[in-house]
Amino acid sequence: GPWTPEATVEYPEAVRQLHREFLRAGANVLQSFTFYASDDKLENRGNYVADKFSGQKINEAACNIAKEVSKEGDALVAGGVSQTPSYLSNKSESEVKAIFRKQLDVFIKKEVDFLIAEYFEHVEEAVWAVEILKESGLPVAVTLCIGPEGDMHGILPGECAVRLVNAGASIVGVNCHFDPATCLKTIKLMKEGLAAAKLKAHLMSQPIAFHTPDCGKQGFIDLPEFPFALEPRILTRWDVHRYAREAYNLGIRYIGGCCGFEPYHIRAIAEELAPERGFLPCASEKHGSWGSDLSMHTKPWVRARARKEYWENVLPASGRPYCPSLSKPDDWGVTKGDLIQQKEATTEQQLKELFKKQAFKFKPVS
Amino acid sequence: GPWTPEATVEYPEAVRQLHREFLRAGANVLQSFTFYASDDKLENRGNYVADKFSGQKINEAACNIAKEVSKEGDALVAGGVSQTPSYLSNKSESEVKAIFRKQLDVFIKKEVDFLIAEYFEHVEEAVWAVEILKESGLPVAVTLCIGPEGDMHGILPGECAVRLVNAGASIVGVNCHFDPATCLKTIKLMKEGLAAAKLKAHLMSQPIAFHTPDCGKQGFIDLPEFPFALEPRILTRWDVHRYAREAYNLGIRYIGGCCGFEPYHIRAIAEELAPERGFLPCASEKHGSWGSDLSMHTKPWVRARARKEYWENVLPASGRPYCPSLSKPDDWGVTKGDLIQQKEATTEQQLKELFKKQAFKFKPVS
Amino acid sequence: GPWTPEATVEYPEAVRQLHREFLRAGANVLQSFTFYASDDKLENRGNYVADKFSGQKINEAACNIAKEVSKEGDALVAGGVSQTPSYLSNKSESEVKAIFRKQLDVFIKKEVDFLIAEYFEHVEEAVWAVEILKESGLPVAVTLCIGPEGDMHGILPGECAVRLVNAGASIVGVNCHFDPATCLKTIKLMKEGLAAAKLKAHLMSQPIAFHTPDCGKQGFIDLPEFPFALEPRILTRWDVHRYAREAYNLGIRYIGGCCGFEPYHIRAIAEELAPERGFLPCASEKHGSWGSDLSMHTKPWVRARARKEYWENVLPASGRPYCPSLSKPDDWGVTKGDLIQQKEATTEQQLKELFKKQAFKFKPVS
Amino acid sequence: GPWTPEATVEYPEAVRQLHREFLRAGANVLQSFTFYASDDKLENRGNYVADKFSGQKINEAACNIAKEVSKEGDALVAGGVSQTPSYLSNKSESEVKAIFRKQLDVFIKKEVDFLIAEYFEHVEEAVWAVEILKESGLPVAVTLCIGPEGDMHGILPGECAVRLVNAGASIVGVNCHFDPATCLKTIKLMKEGLAAAKLKAHLMSQPIAFHTPDCGKQGFIDLPEFPFALEPRILTRWDVHRYAREAYNLGIRYIGGCCGFEPYHIRAIAEELAPERGFLPCASEKHGSWGSDLSMHTKPWVRARARKEYWENVLPASGRPYCPSLSKPDDWGVTKGDLIQQKEATTEQQLKELFKKQAFKFKPVS
Repeated sequence: GPWTPEATVEYPEAVRQLHREFLRAGANVLQSFTFYASDDKLENRGNYVADKFSGQKINEAACNIAKEVSKEGDALVAGGVSQTPSYLSNKSESEVKAIFRKQLDVFIKKEVDFLIAEYFEHVEEAVWAVEILKESGLPVAVTLCIGPEGDMHGILPGECAVRLVNAGASIVGVNCHFDPATCLKTIKLMKEGLAAAKLKAHLMSQPIAFHTPDCGKQGFIDLPEFPFALEPRILTRWDVHRYAREAYNLGIRYIGGCCGFEPYHIRAIAEELAPERGFLPCASEKHGSWGSDLSMHTKPWVRARARKEYWENVLPASGRPYCPSLSKPDDWGVTKGDLIQQKEATTEQQLKELFKKQAFKFKPVS
Repeated sequence: GPWTPEATVEYPEAVRQLHREFLRAGANVLQSFTFYASDDKLENRGNYVADKFSGQKINEAACNIAKEVSKEGDALVAGGVSQTPSYLSNKSESEVKAIFRKQLDVFIKKEVDFLIAEYFEHVEEAVWAVEILKESGLPVAVTLCIGPEGDMHGILPGECAVRLVNAGASIVGVNCHFDPATCLKTIKLMKEGLAAAKLKAHLMSQPIAFHTPDCGKQGFIDLPEFPFALEPRILTRWDVHRYAREAYNLGIRYIGGCCGFEPYHIRAIAEELAPERGFLPCASEKHGSWGSDLSMHTKPWVRARARKEYWENVLPASGRPYCPSLSKPDDWGVTKGDLIQQKEATTEQQLKELFKKQAFKFKPVS
Repeated sequence: GPWTPEATVEYPEAVRQLHREFLRAGANVLQSFTFYASDDKLENRGNYVADKFSGQKINEAACNIAKEVSKEGDALVAGGVSQTPSYLSNKSESEVKAIFRKQLDVFIKKEVDFLIAEYFEHVEEAVWAVEILKESGLPVAVTLCIGPEGDMHGILPGECAVRLVNAGASIVGVNCHFDPATCLKTIKLMKEGLAAAKLKAHLMSQPIAFHTPDCGKQGFIDLPEFPFALEPRILTRWDVHRYAREAYNLGIRYIGGCCGFEPYHIRAIAEELAPERGFLPCASEKHGSWGSDLSMHTKPWVRARARKEYWENVLPASGRPYCPSLSKPDDWGVTKGDLIQQKEATTEQQLKELFKKQAFKFKPVS
Repeated sequence: GPWTPEATVEYPEAVRQLHREFLRAGANVLQSFTFYASDDKLENRGNYVADKFSGQKINEAACNIAKEVSKEGDALVAGGVSQTPSYLSNKSESEVKAIFRKQLDVFIKKEVDFLIAEYFEHVEEAVWAVEILKESGLPVAVTLCIGPEGDMHGILPGECAVRLVNAGASIVGVNCHFDPATCLKTIKLMKEGLAAAKLKAHLMSQPIAFHTPDCGKQGFIDLPEFPFALEPRILTRWDVHRYAREAYNLGIRYIGGCCGFEPYHIRAIAEELAPERGFLPCASEKHGSWGSDLSMHTKPWVRARARKEYWENVLPASGRPYCPSLSKPDDWGVTKGDLIQQKEATTEQQLKELFKKQAFKFKPVS
């Protein structure tokens, strides 16, 4: 949560380079670097930033950078809002909407091309966001971070999609929390829901770049490896090729990624869909599709890997024989109440108690 | 091999940002971006670059960027040379040395602080490189990409270290090809060899950021996952903490990384050794050591992960139950001869023949 | 299929010892060794046995042995019938029932205590079997080899159970094809179906002794490891302890096992349920529960394993780092037609064609 | 240790059937069921047996059964002795030899065909055993339970073999503790040692039927799965085919198995070496080599498994995605002293203390 949005004012050069690398990888959309950049989030959970910079300043800087880099290629700029602490602390609809409106004012002033409302665990809040964003007259895309089981109140994907389109969204889908396979399942349910309701909308998909066949309803957050030991789960570019193709075949036309996606993952989408798009991204100038450049490697057995047939079928080893291949999601049954509401860091005493319950969760050094 | 060094002239901003992020992560040395930037390598294997830029121009640009970024913090700049195609094609000692001298001239002109000769599979060529570099009067570091079994001619690590120190190196060690555990084994043998010979030198370690307990004499190049499906093997920051501590305990004082190391891996070295160095890197300003900032997460079971005890013991799952945990290194017994000498890409016909031998290497889609 | 029932006439001593070891392990029921001993099965698929012995002789010998061994302890003897080739080749109800009646005559003559109809993929045939068996006036138990998805015609477990109880079965459940966890899921559905229909019956469970989380609708038959490479999937005695406890808690009172269960697995059921049964099986005389006898081992770290807490939590390694932890079920979409009907062995030519389709199913030697 | 040898007097029928099944599987040798049947072992570690039966009675019964069953086929009978508690408790050479002599007297009286001294961790004791056994004038085979690192005093396999042949053994090799691959490595070293010493002897191999690539110097005893969770490591019959072929190619002519080997594993040896032996074992009458009988299965994809090519290449899954593929051997550094000497069971108090040290060895329920 804390400590990312202010990068737009503290390290603009880094954010600029980040946008640039995704643009070169084939991205058609540069999304303003404003995730969790609402005022209520900025002052939340020990983030000192709000004292130094206003949310307005941070959001404006984000738009400036995205607009500037977009001119280096052919990309649209989208302004983005996301789930708010205000909603999670049961603030009123008008209070929550006020938060979104404040960010929207910046996006309008900065003339973004369209708007994205993303990462909502509750469809209700997403609907509120859409209702505000559409006031701008700009196209609105909206994604929930839910799986096939639906949102935190058990509202199923199909129904969620219907509510969002009725609220005014022209693009609906999912982002974050789950791997590509799971996200595509969820979007399929959204598509069926829209069809049943005779509604039309574009579909959008932004999974995480980690394999999570073992996660539960709340996605990768509950996996024991979250957030600092997810490396063995990272998608290969070939996993992304498969994802891009399956997403396209499902009728999804806004195909991207969320946590863990690096420029080379986005490039894999662009390379897989080059036939449909009619061109390769400029970052492919020095990256032969399906490893074709390996044909110049010195070793014959590496040269033999210069082919789709090889990479499509490789079963990559983890190099970790003392680790399992799946994990049990962590979840102590505590999902609301003081512990979750409190804004301060958990005390040592609280940690001790929580830890006691879970002594067995600690495993031997591998 | 092809297509990296020219980034210094084609995308200087990207290289600058890369240096900057390693500097902020705690690096004390910025190494000029000149790997495989010798003239003979640049014109090799279909790299069109040599036509556009001279090696000199590329090496100079690399030095300029490193020097410039080093001023943003407290870091030394090192000029780097590496294994040459000339040596592998059995060119004479004087021809090979001429290659190194050409790069050295640039480093001297650009006033680097010291020199690194790295990634040598044959100690003989490394000795030649050291002999040239030391002419500058600057300190010389040298690393071989070998394992405990020694170099390509079977010369053992201890003997290699002795030859390199006798040639004039003041820092010796290994880089690339193997994971931290294997590299430390090799360096331990180098250390014992030097002690037996009553020689003194600093030790240096730059492993790859992939777990490779299953690789053979030539390291990760021969693993079926090389180079495009190594993700499941990537080190976590906690693996790097352990590596940094063990390297330090072994007496190594030049502790870094090679392929796969990202700034956050280098930061993990800096955080583990903060007690010894007396400070944290600036990139730690927003990264609590051992996940301490998770104490502000909303979920109690994620908060309980805000502790060394947790991350030290976690056994990360791959999320890939259809994949093995180890692979058999690929190696068709072809290690010299035309196939390896040829500079052109392997023909479809050659690939077909190589492929025939390996039908069984192809595995089912997971 | 072929080549087991005749053991009762060819190697009676071996069958006797087998019964004896299960009896000593704690079995309350000795089931006559008559699986696939119907006349139509005996003459099927190249089994020469039918030429030498009549089905009657084989079934009588089976009863004699079971009765004889049962007197060595306190066990009931059950006569068993199972799925017939006649049904699978679309013979009429009367023809199929005639097959069952022929076996039943033997069981009545030999005065078994009750009857079991087991291993039916189609509930319709199971109903026919129950209708015949109940004519004897003896209690009838019936089990299907189905999973939560239901029988081969898609009839769900709850409905299957209802039909079987209505047909006259006093014990219903599942056997074979799936591991304990899957079987318990299926029986839970049967239990709910019976409750909804206000029907009463005892529940029975006989899973295989292999972990099969990855199998499809037809169970372990389709796994690539079936039938000759299932070893890594074999249940430990501790897996069986957990199974027995969960089965008991679900209300199942006829708790056993199918393929892969050895006497020590059955003993684990008897040891787990000793508190409920009030005694330990005689085979436990030399087997301390939960490894307690390890307290006399010479090594302290092995002694520390003399406790439930240890074995309950051990995560056993496969010792096979080059193998995956899950497999994709094999299934070429051919489920009916000549290939399945033909009684003769598949020809080399047929095998070649089948094999061609599956080239990629063949994996490298580990 | 405790509670096996007395089976010869308590359950002769079970032992008879066991011998019979191995004989039918192709065994050429029936070894008397006298492992750990020396008087000092029988009275050791809470084994009440010594009170009921003398060692002599147990050893005689063992010989009677083996001789009797051997007449059902074509097999030799061997009398076996093994490592004694007397040696481990530092008794004198004459005391230890007296133990062996007592068993030898029985073997001579019962007219066994030859003698085996097996399962010695210390070559010194094995030499003593050979010296006694050879007094009988019968051929003597001897096996150590050591790995490539040698015996408990670090005496290497080559040297061990030389001492044993010089002591009078005509067959030398290894048994128990390690998997086939490791045992063959050790025997290769023995073979080289004998060749260097210009000595001649037959080679013998009896590995365990568990994959143990991860075990340490003391073999599978130290693995966390020992002895009650080894199932996932069990060899398939195909693993045994490979073992038999490699053993034969290494020049070994006494090829068998130890813990975990079941009759079907021994049959796999006999089937693999049928070309050399010139016949198949009678148990193969109903077991087609390399799964050939699957050609009569109803499912085409199972029929396609009726071939060597399939089973040779299958990589069997464990069905346990929450388990690792390798384990760290347990070893708390306590290898001698009171804890190991004491004959009584470890007290709860001792267990508690041992357990405390190892809290982290306990892993979460999978």
